[in-house]
Amino acid sequence: MRNYKVILQYEGTRYQGWQRQASTDNTIQGKLETLLTRMVQEEKKREVPPVQVDGAGRTDAGVHALAQTANFHLDTEKTPEQIRDYMNFYLPEDIAVLSCKEAPERFHSRLNARGKRYEYRVWNDAKVKPVFERRFVSWMPEDLELEAMRRAAGYLTGTHDFKSFTSAKRSKKSTVRTLTRIDITRSGQELRLSFEGDGFLYHMVRILTGTLLETGRGERKPEEMKAVLEAGTREAAGALAPACGLTLMEVKY
Amino acid sequence: MRNYKVILQYEGTRYQGWQRQASTDNTIQGKLETLLTRMVQEEKKREVPPVQVDGAGRTDAGVHALAQTANFHLDTEKTPEQIRDYMNFYLPEDIAVLSCKEAPERFHSRLNARGKRYEYRVWNDAKVKPVFERRFVSWMPEDLELEAMRRAAGYLTGTHDFKSFTSAKRSKKSTVRTLTRIDITRSGQELRLSFEGDGFLYHMVRILTGTLLETGRGERKPEEMKAVLEAGTREAAGALAPACGLTLMEVKY
Repeated sequence: MRNYKVILQYEGTRYQGWQRQASTDNTIQGKLETLLTRMVQEEKKREVPPVQVDGAGRTDAGVHALAQTANFHLDTEKTPEQIRDYMNFYLPEDIAVLSCKEAPERFHSRLNARGKRYEYRVWNDAKVKPVFERRFVSWMPEDLELEAMRRAAGYLTGTHDFKSFTSAKRSKKSTVRTLTRIDITRSGQELRLSFEGDGFLYHMVRILTGTLLETGRGERKPEEMKAVLEAGTREAAGALAPACGLTLMEVKY
Repeated sequence: MRNYKVILQYEGTRYQGWQRQASTDNTIQGKLETLLTRMVQEEKKREVPPVQVDGAGRTDAGVHALAQTANFHLDTEKTPEQIRDYMNFYLPEDIAVLSCKEAPERFHSRLNARGKRYEYRVWNDAKVKPVFERRFVSWMPEDLELEAMRRAAGYLTGTHDFKSFTSAKRSKKSTVRTLTRIDITRSGQELRLSFEGDGFLYHMVRILTGTLLETGRGERKPEEMKAVLEAGTREAAGALAPACGLTLMEVKY
Protein backbone atom coordinates (compact mmCIF):
# COMPACT_ATOMS: atom_id res chain seq x y z
CA MET A 1 0.00 0.00 0.00
CA ARG A 2 1.31 3.41 -0.96
CA ASN A 3 -0.04 6.79 0.10
CA TYR A 4 -0.99 9.23 -2.68
CA LYS A 5 -1.59 12.95 -2.42
CA VAL A 6 -3.82 14.57 -5.02
CA ILE A 7 -4.74 18.17 -5.72
CA LEU A 8 -8.32 18.45 -6.92
CA GLN A 9 -10.40 21.10 -8.61
CA TYR A 10 -14.18 21.00 -8.68
CA GLU A 11 -17.29 23.02 -9.30
CA GLY A 12 -19.55 22.13 -6.37
CA THR A 13 -22.85 23.20 -7.96
CA ARG A 14 -24.13 19.70 -8.71
CA TYR A 15 -22.89 17.96 -5.56
CA GLN A 16 -24.05 17.36 -2.00
CA GLY A 17 -20.67 18.55 -0.77
CA TRP A 18 -17.36 16.79 -0.16
CA GLN A 19 -18.29 14.27 2.49
CA ARG A 20 -19.53 10.79 1.67
CA GLN A 21 -23.11 10.19 2.86
CA ALA A 22 -25.06 7.00 3.26
CA SER A 23 -28.18 8.61 1.75
CA THR A 24 -26.66 9.76 -1.57
CA ASP A 25 -23.75 8.87 -3.84
CA ASN A 26 -23.69 12.43 -5.13
CA THR A 27 -20.68 13.67 -3.12
CA ILE A 28 -17.16 14.46 -4.29
CA GLN A 29 -15.59 12.03 -1.81
CA GLY A 30 -18.07 9.34 -2.85
CA LYS A 31 -17.31 9.79 -6.57
CA LEU A 32 -13.56 9.56 -5.97
CA GLU A 33 -13.78 6.51 -3.67
CA THR A 34 -16.03 4.61 -6.09
CA LEU A 35 -13.71 5.38 -9.01
CA LEU A 36 -10.48 4.43 -7.22
CA THR A 37 -11.97 1.21 -5.84
CA ARG A 38 -13.01 0.28 -9.39
CA MET A 39 -9.54 1.13 -10.69
CA VAL A 40 -7.83 -1.23 -8.26
CA GLN A 41 -10.47 -3.89 -8.81
CA GLU A 42 -9.90 -3.80 -12.59
CA GLU A 43 -6.19 -4.14 -12.02
CA LYS A 44 -6.40 -6.99 -9.48
CA LYS A 45 -9.30 -8.70 -11.25
CA ARG A 46 -10.94 -9.42 -7.89
CA GLU A 47 -12.98 -7.74 -5.18
CA VAL A 48 -10.90 -5.31 -3.09
CA PRO A 49 -11.72 -3.35 0.10
CA PRO A 50 -13.19 0.07 -0.67
CA VAL A 51 -10.59 2.84 -1.05
CA GLN A 52 -10.92 5.65 1.48
CA VAL A 53 -10.17 9.20 0.32
CA ASP A 54 -9.49 11.87 2.97
CA GLY A 55 -9.89 15.52 2.03
CA ALA A 56 -8.30 18.51 3.75
CA GLY A 57 -11.50 20.56 3.70
CA ARG A 58 -14.97 19.09 3.94
CA THR A 59 -16.62 21.60 1.64
CA ASP A 60 -20.41 22.07 1.91
CA ALA A 61 -22.91 21.33 -0.82
CA GLY A 62 -22.48 23.88 -3.60
CA VAL A 63 -19.02 25.06 -2.47
CA HIS A 64 -16.20 24.91 -5.05
CA ALA A 65 -12.50 24.08 -4.84
CA LEU A 66 -9.71 25.60 -6.89
CA ALA A 67 -7.18 23.39 -5.10
CA GLN A 68 -8.46 20.89 -2.56
CA THR A 69 -5.92 18.39 -1.23
CA ALA A 70 -6.79 14.77 -0.55
CA ASN A 71 -4.92 11.53 0.07
CA PHE A 72 -5.61 7.79 -0.18
CA HIS A 73 -3.77 4.50 0.28
CA LEU A 74 -3.68 2.14 -2.68
CA ASP A 75 -2.07 -1.10 -3.74
CA THR A 76 -1.46 -0.53 -7.44
CA GLU A 77 1.18 -0.99 -10.15
CA LYS A 78 0.18 2.32 -11.70
CA THR A 79 2.46 5.36 -11.52
CA PRO A 80 1.05 8.53 -9.89
CA GLU A 81 0.70 10.06 -13.39
CA GLN A 82 -1.24 7.02 -14.56
CA ILE A 83 -3.55 7.30 -11.54
CA ARG A 84 -4.14 10.98 -12.35
CA ASP A 85 -4.86 10.20 -16.02
CA TYR A 86 -7.18 7.30 -15.14
CA MET A 87 -9.13 9.53 -12.76
CA ASN A 88 -9.37 12.43 -15.22
CA PHE A 89 -10.56 10.08 -17.95
CA TYR A 90 -13.49 8.80 -15.88
CA LEU A 91 -14.37 11.76 -13.63
CA PRO A 92 -17.28 14.00 -14.67
CA GLU A 93 -16.29 17.27 -16.33
CA ASP A 94 -16.82 19.29 -13.13
CA ILE A 95 -14.10 17.44 -11.17
CA ALA A 96 -10.41 17.27 -12.18
CA VAL A 97 -7.22 15.92 -10.64
CA LEU A 98 -4.55 18.60 -11.11
CA SER A 99 -1.74 16.44 -9.76
CA CYS A 100 -1.05 13.11 -8.07
CA LYS A 101 2.15 12.33 -6.17
CA GLU A 102 3.34 9.70 -3.76
CA ALA A 103 3.32 10.96 -0.17
CA PRO A 104 4.99 9.75 3.03
CA GLU A 105 3.12 6.85 4.60
CA ARG A 106 1.85 8.91 7.54
CA PHE A 107 0.76 11.94 5.51
CA HIS A 108 -2.90 12.85 6.18
CA SER A 109 -4.38 15.66 4.10
CA ARG A 110 -6.59 17.03 6.88
CA LEU A 111 -4.63 16.31 10.04
CA ASN A 112 -1.35 17.59 8.57
CA ALA A 113 -2.77 20.77 7.03
CA ARG A 114 -1.18 23.84 8.59
CA GLY A 115 -3.61 26.27 7.07
CA LYS A 116 -6.23 26.94 4.44
CA ARG A 117 -7.36 29.82 2.30
CA TYR A 118 -10.96 30.35 1.23
CA GLU A 119 -12.32 33.04 -1.02
CA TYR A 120 -15.87 34.36 -0.99
CA ARG A 121 -17.00 36.25 -4.11
CA VAL A 122 -19.87 38.74 -4.03
CA TRP A 123 -21.43 40.24 -7.15
CA ASN A 124 -22.30 43.71 -5.91
CA ASP A 125 -24.41 45.34 -8.60
CA ALA A 126 -27.77 46.97 -7.99
CA LYS A 127 -29.31 46.24 -11.37
CA VAL A 128 -27.67 43.45 -13.32
CA LYS A 129 -27.03 39.89 -12.17
CA PRO A 130 -23.84 38.14 -13.23
CA VAL A 131 -24.13 35.86 -16.27
CA PHE A 132 -20.74 34.23 -16.84
CA GLU A 133 -19.80 34.09 -13.13
CA ARG A 134 -23.21 33.26 -11.71
CA ARG A 135 -22.22 29.81 -10.40
CA PHE A 136 -19.25 31.20 -8.45
CA VAL A 137 -20.56 34.39 -6.86
CA SER A 138 -23.43 35.36 -4.65
CA TRP A 139 -25.46 38.39 -5.69
CA MET A 140 -25.89 41.40 -3.39
CA PRO A 141 -27.53 44.48 -4.90
CA GLU A 142 -27.16 46.80 -1.86
CA ASP A 143 -24.34 49.31 -1.45
CA LEU A 144 -21.51 48.02 0.72
CA GLU A 145 -19.23 50.12 2.89
CA LEU A 146 -15.85 48.46 2.45
CA GLU A 147 -14.10 50.42 5.18
CA ALA A 148 -16.62 49.26 7.78
CA MET A 149 -16.20 45.67 6.61
CA ARG A 150 -12.41 45.94 6.89
CA ARG A 151 -12.64 47.39 10.39
CA ALA A 152 -14.96 44.56 11.44
CA ALA A 153 -12.54 42.07 9.88
CA GLY A 154 -9.80 43.55 12.07
CA TYR A 155 -11.74 42.47 15.20
CA LEU A 156 -12.15 38.95 13.83
CA THR A 157 -8.55 38.39 12.78
CA GLY A 158 -6.34 36.65 15.34
CA THR A 159 -6.87 33.78 17.75
CA HIS A 160 -10.42 33.61 19.12
CA ASP A 161 -13.08 31.18 20.21
CA PHE A 162 -15.26 31.17 17.06
CA LYS A 163 -18.18 29.32 18.65
CA SER A 164 -20.55 32.11 17.50
CA PHE A 165 -19.44 31.50 13.91
CA THR A 166 -20.34 27.85 13.47
CA SER A 167 -23.53 25.90 12.88
CA ALA A 168 -21.97 22.81 14.44
CA LYS A 169 -23.87 21.18 17.26
CA ARG A 170 -22.38 21.55 20.72
CA SER A 171 -19.33 19.33 20.97
CA LYS A 172 -16.41 18.85 23.36
CA LYS A 173 -13.95 19.84 20.64
CA SER A 174 -12.21 23.20 20.79
CA THR A 175 -13.74 26.00 18.75
CA VAL A 176 -10.62 28.15 19.06
CA ARG A 177 -9.04 28.99 15.71
CA THR A 178 -6.52 31.49 14.38
CA LEU A 179 -7.56 33.66 11.45
CA THR A 180 -4.26 34.98 10.10
CA ARG A 181 -5.86 37.37 7.63
CA ILE A 182 -9.07 38.59 6.06
CA ASP A 183 -8.52 40.61 2.89
CA ILE A 184 -11.42 42.46 1.33
CA THR A 185 -10.90 43.82 -2.17
CA ARG A 186 -13.12 45.19 -4.90
CA SER A 187 -12.56 44.95 -8.63
CA GLY A 188 -15.39 46.47 -10.66
CA GLN A 189 -18.69 45.19 -9.34
CA GLU A 190 -17.04 42.19 -7.70
CA LEU A 191 -16.05 41.96 -4.05
CA ARG A 192 -13.63 39.29 -2.86
CA LEU A 193 -13.28 38.28 0.77
CA SER A 194 -10.20 36.16 1.31
CA PHE A 195 -9.90 34.20 4.59
CA GLU A 196 -6.68 32.55 5.69
CA GLY A 197 -6.36 30.57 8.90
CA ASP A 198 -5.10 27.44 10.60
CA GLY A 199 -8.51 25.81 10.37
CA PHE A 200 -12.18 26.57 9.95
CA LEU A 201 -15.24 25.31 11.80
CA TYR A 202 -18.40 24.02 10.09
CA HIS A 203 -19.97 26.96 8.14
CA MET A 204 -17.41 29.37 9.65
CA VAL A 205 -16.38 31.17 6.44
CA ARG A 206 -19.97 31.59 5.29
CA ILE A 207 -21.12 32.97 8.67
CA LEU A 208 -18.10 35.31 8.85
CA THR A 209 -19.00 36.50 5.33
CA GLY A 210 -22.68 36.97 6.21
CA THR A 211 -21.74 38.98 9.31
CA LEU A 212 -19.25 41.15 7.38
CA LEU A 213 -21.83 41.82 4.66
CA GLU A 214 -24.35 42.94 7.28
CA THR A 215 -21.68 45.32 8.56
CA GLY A 216 -21.09 46.54 5.00
CA ARG A 217 -24.80 47.30 4.64
CA GLY A 218 -24.72 49.29 7.88
CA GLU A 219 -26.85 46.82 9.86
CA ARG A 220 -24.03 46.21 12.33
CA LYS A 221 -21.19 48.31 13.64
CA PRO A 222 -17.61 47.05 13.27
CA GLU A 223 -17.07 47.31 17.05
CA GLU A 224 -19.94 44.86 17.60
CA MET A 225 -17.66 42.02 16.48
CA LYS A 226 -16.06 41.88 19.95
CA ALA A 227 -19.43 41.19 21.56
CA VAL A 228 -20.38 38.70 18.85
CA LEU A 229 -17.21 36.70 19.54
CA GLU A 230 -17.77 36.89 23.31
CA ALA A 231 -21.41 35.77 23.09
CA GLY A 232 -20.41 32.28 21.99
CA THR A 233 -23.79 31.57 20.42
CA ARG A 234 -24.72 31.18 16.75
CA GLU A 235 -27.59 33.70 17.12
CA ALA A 236 -25.12 36.51 17.90
CA ALA A 237 -23.54 36.32 14.44
CA GLY A 238 -25.01 37.16 11.03
CA ALA A 239 -26.71 35.14 8.33
CA LEU A 240 -25.14 32.17 6.57
CA ALA A 241 -23.96 33.44 3.16
CA PRO A 242 -25.00 31.28 0.17
CA ALA A 243 -22.68 28.35 -0.67
CA CYS A 244 -22.19 29.20 -4.35
CA GLY A 245 -19.96 32.21 -3.58
CA LEU A 246 -17.39 30.14 -1.67
CA THR A 247 -14.25 28.48 -3.06
CA LEU A 248 -11.48 26.60 -1.24
CA MET A 249 -8.40 28.17 -2.80
CA GLU A 250 -5.43 26.46 -1.19
CA VAL A 251 -4.36 24.08 1.56
CA LYS A 252 -0.98 24.72 3.19
CA TYR A 253 1.34 22.10 4.71
CA MET B 1 -42.78 53.97 -31.52
CA ARG B 2 -39.33 54.59 -30.06
CA ASN B 3 -36.11 52.81 -30.94
CA TYR B 4 -34.18 51.22 -28.06
CA LYS B 5 -30.58 50.02 -28.03
CA VAL B 6 -29.64 47.32 -25.53
CA ILE B 7 -26.34 45.76 -24.61
CA LEU B 8 -26.75 42.08 -23.80
CA GLN B 9 -24.68 39.44 -22.10
CA TYR B 10 -25.36 35.73 -22.47
CA GLU B 11 -23.92 32.29 -22.03
CA GLY B 12 -24.80 30.51 -25.28
CA THR B 13 -24.43 26.94 -23.97
CA ARG B 14 -28.17 26.20 -23.71
CA TYR B 15 -29.33 28.00 -26.85
CA GLN B 16 -29.68 27.30 -30.56
CA GLY B 17 -27.86 30.54 -31.30
CA TRP B 18 -29.01 34.13 -31.67
CA GLN B 19 -31.30 33.91 -34.64
CA ARG B 20 -35.01 33.19 -34.34
CA GLN B 21 -36.02 29.89 -35.97
CA ALA B 22 -39.40 28.54 -36.91
CA SER B 23 -38.48 25.08 -35.60
CA THR B 24 -37.50 26.06 -32.03
CA ASP B 25 -38.19 28.82 -29.56
CA ASN B 26 -34.83 28.19 -27.91
CA THR B 27 -32.92 31.11 -29.44
CA ILE B 28 -31.73 34.32 -27.79
CA GLN B 29 -33.59 36.51 -30.31
CA GLY B 30 -36.73 34.42 -29.84
CA LYS B 31 -36.61 34.74 -26.03
CA LEU B 32 -36.19 38.51 -26.23
CA GLU B 33 -38.94 39.03 -28.80
CA THR B 34 -41.44 36.91 -26.86
CA LEU B 35 -40.65 38.77 -23.64
CA LEU B 36 -40.88 42.27 -25.12
CA THR B 37 -44.10 41.48 -26.97
CA ARG B 38 -45.58 40.27 -23.68
CA MET B 39 -44.37 43.40 -21.91
CA VAL B 40 -46.14 45.72 -24.36
CA GLN B 41 -49.23 43.51 -24.38
CA GLU B 42 -49.50 43.67 -20.58
CA GLU B 43 -49.18 47.45 -20.74
CA LYS B 44 -51.71 47.97 -23.54
CA LYS B 45 -54.04 45.25 -22.29
CA ARG B 46 -54.62 44.09 -25.88
CA GLU B 47 -52.96 42.06 -28.63
CA VAL B 48 -50.01 43.88 -30.22
CA PRO B 49 -47.87 43.06 -33.29
CA PRO B 50 -44.82 40.98 -32.34
CA VAL B 51 -41.75 43.02 -31.39
CA GLN B 52 -38.75 42.47 -33.65
CA VAL B 53 -35.29 42.50 -32.08
CA ASP B 54 -32.25 42.98 -34.35
CA GLY B 55 -28.83 41.90 -33.11
CA ALA B 56 -25.45 43.12 -34.33
CA GLY B 57 -23.95 39.63 -34.45
CA ARG B 58 -25.92 36.49 -35.25
CA THR B 59 -23.94 34.24 -32.90
CA ASP B 60 -24.05 30.47 -33.57
CA ALA B 61 -25.47 27.85 -31.21
CA GLY B 62 -23.20 27.61 -28.16
CA VAL B 63 -21.41 30.92 -28.77
CA HIS B 64 -21.41 33.46 -25.92
CA ALA B 65 -21.64 37.24 -25.77
CA LEU B 66 -19.95 39.54 -23.29
CA ALA B 67 -21.52 42.55 -24.98
CA GLN B 68 -23.88 41.95 -27.88
CA THR B 69 -25.79 45.00 -29.14
CA ALA B 70 -29.41 44.81 -30.28
CA ASN B 71 -32.22 47.24 -31.00
CA PHE B 72 -36.00 47.17 -31.21
CA HIS B 73 -38.91 49.56 -31.77
CA LEU B 74 -41.57 49.77 -29.07
CA ASP B 75 -44.61 51.78 -28.16
CA THR B 76 -44.38 51.92 -24.35
CA GLU B 77 -44.75 54.31 -21.43
CA LYS B 78 -41.81 52.64 -19.66
CA THR B 79 -38.45 54.40 -19.31
CA PRO B 80 -35.38 52.64 -20.77
CA GLU B 81 -34.33 51.70 -17.20
CA GLN B 82 -37.76 50.19 -16.57
CA ILE B 83 -37.48 48.16 -19.78
CA ARG B 84 -34.05 46.90 -18.69
CA ASP B 85 -35.34 45.96 -15.22
CA TYR B 86 -38.45 44.26 -16.63
CA MET B 87 -36.31 42.20 -18.99
CA ASN B 88 -33.77 41.25 -16.31
CA PHE B 89 -36.58 40.19 -13.98
CA TYR B 90 -38.06 37.74 -16.49
CA LEU B 91 -35.03 36.61 -18.51
CA PRO B 92 -33.39 33.28 -17.59
CA GLU B 93 -30.21 33.55 -15.54
CA ASP B 94 -27.94 33.01 -18.55
CA ILE B 95 -29.12 36.17 -20.35
CA ALA B 96 -28.83 39.71 -18.96
CA VAL B 97 -29.49 43.23 -20.24
CA LEU B 98 -26.50 45.35 -19.22
CA SER B 99 -28.04 48.61 -20.43
CA CYS B 100 -30.99 49.99 -22.35
CA LYS B 101 -31.05 53.44 -23.95
CA GLU B 102 -33.18 55.28 -26.43
CA ALA B 103 -31.52 55.39 -29.87
CA PRO B 104 -32.09 57.55 -32.96
CA GLU B 105 -35.05 56.34 -35.00
CA ARG B 106 -32.88 55.05 -37.86
CA PHE B 107 -30.31 53.27 -35.69
CA HIS B 108 -29.91 49.59 -36.67
CA SER B 109 -27.61 47.47 -34.50
CA ARG B 110 -26.28 45.34 -37.37
CA LEU B 111 -26.33 47.69 -40.34
CA ASN B 112 -24.73 50.56 -38.39
CA ALA B 113 -22.01 48.49 -36.72
CA ARG B 114 -18.56 49.69 -37.78
CA GLY B 115 -16.73 46.74 -36.31
CA LYS B 116 -16.80 43.81 -33.94
CA ARG B 117 -14.39 42.02 -31.70
CA TYR B 118 -14.54 38.29 -30.99
CA GLU B 119 -12.36 36.29 -28.67
CA TYR B 120 -11.62 32.59 -28.97
CA ARG B 121 -10.29 30.88 -25.82
CA VAL B 122 -8.29 27.65 -25.99
CA TRP B 123 -7.39 25.58 -22.94
CA ASN B 124 -3.98 24.28 -23.92
CA ASP B 125 -3.02 21.67 -21.33
CA ALA B 126 -1.87 18.16 -22.18
CA LYS B 127 -3.21 16.46 -19.08
CA VAL B 128 -5.93 18.32 -17.24
CA LYS B 129 -9.19 19.64 -18.67
CA PRO B 130 -10.54 22.97 -17.43
CA VAL B 131 -13.16 22.78 -14.67
CA PHE B 132 -14.32 26.32 -13.88
CA GLU B 133 -13.88 27.63 -17.44
CA ARG B 134 -15.06 24.56 -19.32
CA ARG B 135 -18.13 26.21 -20.84
CA PHE B 136 -16.10 29.08 -22.29
CA VAL B 137 -12.99 27.44 -23.71
CA SER B 138 -12.22 24.66 -26.11
CA TRP B 139 -9.67 22.05 -25.04
CA MET B 140 -6.53 21.37 -27.05
CA PRO B 141 -3.94 19.10 -25.44
CA GLU B 142 -1.24 19.38 -28.18
CA ASP B 143 1.71 21.77 -27.99
CA LEU B 144 1.12 24.96 -29.93
CA GLU B 145 3.78 27.06 -31.61
CA LEU B 146 2.63 30.62 -30.96
CA GLU B 147 5.14 32.29 -33.25
CA ALA B 148 3.93 30.25 -36.24
CA MET B 149 0.32 31.14 -35.38
CA ARG B 150 1.21 34.83 -35.20
CA ARG B 151 2.98 34.71 -38.54
CA ALA B 152 -0.02 33.00 -40.13
CA ALA B 153 -2.28 35.64 -38.55
CA GLY B 154 -0.15 38.28 -40.27
CA TYR B 155 -1.15 36.89 -43.69
CA LEU B 156 -4.82 36.92 -42.72
CA THR B 157 -4.93 40.45 -41.35
CA GLY B 158 -6.00 43.15 -43.79
CA THR B 159 -8.62 43.34 -46.52
CA HIS B 160 -9.17 40.02 -48.27
CA ASP B 161 -11.82 37.91 -49.89
CA PHE B 162 -12.54 35.46 -47.06
CA LYS B 163 -14.62 33.06 -49.15
CA SER B 164 -12.37 30.18 -48.01
CA PHE B 165 -13.22 31.02 -44.40
CA THR B 166 -17.00 30.71 -44.41
CA SER B 167 -19.48 27.84 -44.38
CA ALA B 168 -22.09 30.03 -46.08
CA LYS B 169 -23.62 28.70 -49.25
CA ARG B 170 -22.61 30.46 -52.44
CA SER B 171 -24.31 33.83 -52.62
CA LYS B 172 -24.06 37.00 -54.65
CA LYS B 173 -23.03 39.00 -51.57
CA SER B 174 -19.45 40.15 -51.21
CA THR B 175 -17.18 37.99 -49.05
CA VAL B 176 -14.56 40.72 -48.82
CA ARG B 177 -13.89 41.82 -45.25
CA THR B 178 -11.21 43.74 -43.37
CA LEU B 179 -9.57 42.08 -40.38
CA THR B 180 -7.93 44.96 -38.55
CA ARG B 181 -6.14 42.76 -36.04
CA ILE B 182 -5.60 39.25 -34.74
CA ASP B 183 -3.90 39.15 -31.34
CA ILE B 184 -2.71 35.84 -29.95
CA THR B 185 -1.71 35.78 -26.30
CA ARG B 186 -1.02 33.12 -23.72
CA SER B 187 -1.61 33.35 -19.99
CA GLY B 188 -0.76 30.13 -18.15
CA GLN B 189 -2.36 27.23 -20.00
CA GLU B 190 -4.88 29.51 -21.69
CA LEU B 191 -4.53 30.87 -25.20
CA ARG B 192 -6.66 33.80 -26.38
CA LEU B 193 -7.17 34.67 -30.03
CA SER B 194 -8.72 38.09 -30.43
CA PHE B 195 -10.22 39.02 -33.80
CA GLU B 196 -11.21 42.56 -34.70
CA GLY B 197 -12.71 43.51 -38.01
CA ASP B 198 -15.39 45.44 -39.87
CA GLY B 199 -17.57 42.35 -40.18
CA PHE B 200 -17.44 38.58 -40.12
CA LEU B 201 -18.92 35.94 -42.44
CA TYR B 202 -20.86 32.89 -41.23
CA HIS B 203 -18.44 30.68 -39.19
CA MET B 204 -15.51 32.93 -40.15
CA VAL B 205 -13.97 33.34 -36.68
CA ARG B 206 -14.24 29.62 -35.92
CA ILE B 207 -12.66 28.61 -39.27
CA LEU B 208 -9.88 31.20 -38.84
CA THR B 209 -9.27 29.77 -35.36
CA GLY B 210 -9.26 26.17 -36.61
CA THR B 211 -6.78 27.07 -39.35
CA LEU B 212 -4.50 28.96 -36.95
CA LEU B 213 -4.56 26.05 -34.47
CA GLU B 214 -3.52 23.66 -37.26
CA THR B 215 -0.63 26.01 -37.98
CA GLY B 216 0.25 26.04 -34.26
CA ARG B 217 0.39 22.24 -34.28
CA GLY B 218 2.74 22.30 -37.27
CA GLU B 219 0.22 20.81 -39.71
CA ARG B 220 0.32 23.92 -41.90
CA LYS B 221 2.98 26.49 -42.65
CA PRO B 222 2.22 30.18 -42.00
CA GLU B 223 3.01 31.03 -45.67
CA GLU B 224 0.24 28.67 -46.77
CA MET B 225 -2.33 31.26 -45.69
CA LYS B 226 -1.83 33.19 -48.95
CA ALA B 227 -2.82 30.14 -50.99
CA VAL B 228 -5.74 29.37 -48.66
CA LEU B 229 -7.13 32.87 -49.19
CA GLU B 230 -6.60 32.66 -52.94
CA ALA B 231 -8.27 29.25 -53.26
CA GLY B 232 -11.66 30.71 -52.42
CA THR B 233 -13.08 27.34 -51.34
CA ARG B 234 -14.02 26.15 -47.85
CA GLU B 235 -11.93 22.96 -48.28
CA ALA B 236 -8.70 24.98 -48.49
CA ALA B 237 -9.06 26.25 -44.91
CA GLY B 238 -8.87 24.34 -41.62
CA ALA B 239 -11.44 22.73 -39.34
CA LEU B 240 -14.32 24.59 -37.72
CA ALA B 241 -13.28 25.22 -34.09
CA PRO B 242 -15.92 24.27 -31.45
CA ALA B 243 -18.53 26.93 -30.66
CA CYS B 244 -18.04 26.93 -26.87
CA GLY B 245 -14.65 28.70 -27.09
CA LEU B 246 -16.07 31.75 -28.87
CA THR B 247 -17.38 34.96 -27.31
CA LEU B 248 -18.59 38.16 -28.98
CA MET B 249 -16.75 40.78 -26.93
CA GLU B 250 -17.79 44.12 -28.35
CA VAL B 251 -19.64 45.85 -31.17
CA LYS B 252 -18.30 49.21 -32.33
CA TYR B 253 -20.34 52.07 -33.84
